[in-house]
Amino acid sequence: MAGTAKSRKGNPEDLDQGLLPELIGYQLRRAQFVVFSEFQKVMADLEMTPGQYGVMTLIGRNPGLTQSALARAVGVERSTMVAVIDGLEKNKFVERRPSPVDRRSYALVLTETGEKKLAELDPMVALHDKEVSSVFTPEEKATFMALLEKVCTIGR
Amino acid sequence: MAGTAKSRKGNPEDLDQGLLPELIGYQLRRAQFVVFSEFQKVMADLEMTPGQYGVMTLIGRNPGLTQSALARAVGVERSTMVAVIDGLEKNKFVERRPSPVDRRSYALVLTETGEKKLAELDPMVALHDKEVSSVFTPEEKATFMALLEKVCTIGR
Repeated sequence: MAGTAKSRKGNPEDLDQGLLPELIGYQLRRAQFVVFSEFQKVMADLEMTPGQYGVMTLIGRNPGLTQSALARAVGVERSTMVAVIDGLEKNKFVERRPSPVDRRSYALVLTETGEKKLAELDPMVALHDKEVSSVFTPEEKATFMALLEKVCTIGR
Repeated sequence: MAGTAKSRKGNPEDLDQGLLPELIGYQLRRAQFVVFSEFQKVMADLEMTPGQYGVMTLIGRNPGLTQSALARAVGVERSTMVAVIDGLEKNKFVERRPSPVDRRSYALVLTETGEKKLAELDPMVALHDKEVSSVFTPEEKATFMALLEKVCTIGR
C-alpha cells in the first residue's frame, strides 16, 4: 500500500498537503519549528527553551516588567506567561516582587543566578542564530527579516 | 517611572529587546503568533485552531495516516499530536481505526462530519490567507515563501 508507506515516512514532502504549503501561516509555523528545534539541540544541556530565553532577556533589559506586559510583548496568553515565570522562578532565575505602582501585579526581575545564566546563554544564542542564518546570503537574511517585520504589523 | 509606564503598555517596540529582534527564531515566532491570532479571530466561531485545521487537511488528503507520521509531518511531539487527535475525535471529526499493517498504531480518517467541516473551513482559510498576504506585494509574497522554504531545509 503506497499510502501506508508514505504515512510511515512522514516527511512533509511525501504527503499530499493540499493547499497547506501555500498558506503563510502553515509555512511560518514549519519554519519556526525547524529553527526552535535546532535551538533546543544547542540548548538542551542548559535546559532552556527559546521562549524562556526571550523572556529572560526582556526581564533583564526591562526590570520591573509585569507578567501581563511581558505576555503582550512576547505574544502569548497571560496564563501561558504565568506558567513560564513559574518555571523560571522555580529555577531561581527570576524573582516576582510586589509592584511599587500596582498591588495587583508583580514586578519581575532577574536574580543574580539568572543574570549569570543569561550572560552564559547570549553568546550561544548568537552562535545558533549565525548557524541558522548561514542558510541565507546576507541580502536574503536582510530581506527575510524585513518581510517578517512586515507580517508583524498585521492587525495593528 | 518611565520604565513602569513602558512595561504597562507592553508593545514590543516600547521595550528594550536587546538582541532579540535580530534573531531569526524570535522574529519568526512573533510573525507566526500574529498570523495565528488573526486566524483565530476568523475561526473563533468555528472553534478550530490553525493546528487542528492543518491536521484535518493532512488526514483528509492522506487517509490511514498514523499519529506518529502526522506528528513528524507537522513538526510536533507525538504526545502533542495524540492530544490534538483526542480533541478532534471528541468532536467527531476524526476517527482512529486499527491500522491494517501495524497493530501498535492507529490509522486516522476523517468522519463524514469532519469532511463537511473541512469543506466549510477551506474557503475561510483561503480568505484569511489572502488577507494576511495583502501586507505583501505579489513579488514579496513569492520571495517570503521561498525564504521560509529555505529555512525549512535547515538540519535536513
